[in-house]
Amino acid sequence: MTPDEWFAFLRQDFARGFPAYCGIEVTHVAHGVFETRLNVRPEHQQQDGFVHAGVMATMADHTGGYAAFTIVPPDRRVLTIEFKINFLRPAAGQQLLCRARVINGGRRIIVSEADVFSVADGAEKHVARALVTLMAVEADRTRRTEQRHPELCA
Amino acid sequence: MTPDEWFAFLRQDFARGFPAYCGIEVTHVAHGVFETRLNVRPEHQQQDGFVHAGVMATMADHTGGYAAFTIVPPDRRVLTIEFKINFLRPAAGQQLLCRARVINGGRRIIVSEADVFSVADGAEKHVARALVTLMAVEADRTRRTEQRHPELCA
Amino acid sequence: MTPDEWFAFLRQDFARGFPAYCGIEVTHVAHGVFETRLNVRPEHQQQDGFVHAGVMATMADHTGGYAAFTIVPPDRRVLTIEFKINFLRPAAGQQLLCRARVINGGRRIIVSEADVFSVADGAEKHVARALVTLMAVEADRTRRTEQRHPELCA
Amino acid sequence: MTPDEWFAFLRQDFARGFPAYCGIEVTHVAHGVFETRLNVRPEHQQQDGFVHAGVMATMADHTGGYAAFTIVPPDRRVLTIEFKINFLRPAAGQQLLCRARVINGGRRIIVSEADVFSVADGAEKHVARALVTLMAVEADRTRRTEQRHPELCA
Repeated sequence: MTPDEWFAFLRQDFARGFPAYCGIEVTHVAHGVFETRLNVRPEHQQQDGFVHAGVMATMADHTGGYAAFTIVPPDRRVLTIEFKINFLRPAAGQQLLCRARVINGGRRIIVSEADVFSVADGAEKHVARALVTLMAVEADRTRRTEQRHPELCA
Repeated sequence: MTPDEWFAFLRQDFARGFPAYCGIEVTHVAHGVFETRLNVRPEHQQQDGFVHAGVMATMADHTGGYAAFTIVPPDRRVLTIEFKINFLRPAAGQQLLCRARVINGGRRIIVSEADVFSVADGAEKHVARALVTLMAVEADRTRRTEQRHPELCA
Repeated sequence: MTPDEWFAFLRQDFARGFPAYCGIEVTHVAHGVFETRLNVRPEHQQQDGFVHAGVMATMADHTGGYAAFTIVPPDRRVLTIEFKINFLRPAAGQQLLCRARVINGGRRIIVSEADVFSVADGAEKHVARALVTLMAVEADRTRRTEQRHPELCA
Repeated sequence: MTPDEWFAFLRQDFARGFPAYCGIEVTHVAHGVFETRLNVRPEHQQQDGFVHAGVMATMADHTGGYAAFTIVPPDRRVLTIEFKINFLRPAAGQQLLCRARVINGGRRIIVSEADVFSVADGAEKHVARALVTLMAVEADRTRRTEQRHPELCA
C-alpha cells in the first residue's frame, strides 16, 4: 500500500459512527498530520449557545488519533489511552477546524497534539488545545471482544 | 431556592443541546454528586463497535460539570477549564453509567472526578476515569458574547 | 519471590536518586497500594513559603509508579508515560503524605491515582490529586541506552 | 516598572526554594516566553540512570509558570491550578533545556506549554511536553496563610 493509498483509506475510515453523527469531515491528510472541519449546528451547543466541550473533545481526540494512524503500518490500529484538553475561550463561530499532528511516534506509544479553532466571519480563534496519548496495537478481525485488548484490560 | 429546587432545576437544565443529542439522561443528583446514563446506540460507536472515546469524554465532562453546579449558588454558572480522561478498557456494553463527584470546591475553582462504567448483562465494568477542572463565574443573561468571559479570553 | 519479598524489594528500591534527594520515605506497601511521607524542609518550598508543585508532582508520580510496580511480575519494570495533577489548595503543613493505588492494571498499561495530603498540627488536608499512566516493560540489565525503550522512542 | 525591569525581577525571583535546590537556571525571558537549563547531576536520576520524571515535571511547571508571570501586571501572582506532562523518551543527556510559552492569556486563567529537551553531545532530543493551567491572583504580602486563596480552597 502506498502512503497515498493509506491516506485515502484513512479519509474514508475517519467518518463513521460517532464522528459521522457529529458531522466531522476530513480536510487534509499527510504523514503525521490530520485536519478536520465541523459546521456548527444547534445540536452541538451547550446551555449558553457555545459549542459544547464534548464536541471539541471528540474532534480533538478523533483527529489526533488519525494523525497517529498516518504513521503506523497498515496492519496496526491505534487506541486512545488518554487525553487532556484545555478550553481556551468559548467557541461561538459557525465552523470549527481541528489541526492535529504527531509530536512523538514510538513503536508502541504515539503522542499527538490537536488544536481546535472557531471560525466566525472568516476569522479563526484558538478555542482548545489537546494532548492525546495513543497505543499502536496489531489489527485483527474480531470485533467487540474485550479479550482483544489485554494490553489495557486486567 | 431550596437545595431540592436547585437540584430539580439542574436535572432539567442538564439535557439540552449536545448532551441531549447524545441521549444522556440524569439518574441521581445530590450535593456534590451527579449521575447519568446512556443507552448505547450505533451512532455512539467507533470503527471497532465499541463506544467512541468522545461519547465517554462528553458524558464525563458534562456529568462532572453538573456535579460542580450542585455546590455553587444559583447566581453562578460553571465553565470547564480543562479535563483529562483515561480510557481503561473498551466499552462494549449496552449502557453506560457515569458517576461524578466534587473532590474540591473552591470559591472559583472546582475539581470533579467522573467515572464511566459500561454495563453488559447486568455487570458493570469501569471503562474511563476523568478529572475535570471548572471555574465558577457570575451568571448573566447575555448569550453568545465572548466578552462575557474575560477570565478566559485575552 | 513471594509478594512480601517483592514488597520489601520495592521499599528499598523506592528511595534512590531524586526521590531520596527530596527526602521521600515509604510508609506502607500492599498489592496495588503504595504510601509515602515527606518531612517538609525549606528547600521544598516555592516563593510564598508553601510546598512547591514540583515536590508534590514528584511524590505523586513516584508513589503512583511504585503502586503499579506492586502488581507486575519481578521481571518487569514500569515507566511513566504521562501524568496529570491538580493542586487543590496550598500545602502549608510540616509533613506531606501521599497515598497511591492502582485503578486499572492491564498487562501493558497501568493507571494509578495518587492523593497528596498536607499535615499541620495533626490535621490532614487534601492538597493534590494525580492520575498517572504507566507502561510495564521487560526489565533488562543494560542501563542508559535509549534503545531499551523502542516502545516510546521513534 | 518597564517590561525589562519586570523580566529582570522574574529572572531573580525564579531560582529560589525547590527550583534552586534542583539547580534550574534561567537562560531567556521575553513577553510570554521563559527558558531554563539544568546540568544533570546524580541526584536528578531515577533507578535506571535517566533523569527522574519529577525533575522534568518540576522544570516544566516552574518554567511554564514564569512564562505566565511575564504577561501579568506586577501586582499579580500566578498559581498552578494543574498540569499534565507526557514523557516522550528517556532523558539520558548531561543537560536539560526547557522552553515554555503562553498559549492563551486570559485575565484570570493562563495556559502555558513547556517542552523539555535532553542535550547529549550537542544534540537535543525532545523528552517531555507539558500543558500547564495557571490562575492570576492579586499579590498580597501575607505569607503562609491559606485564607489568601479562597479561589482554590473551600
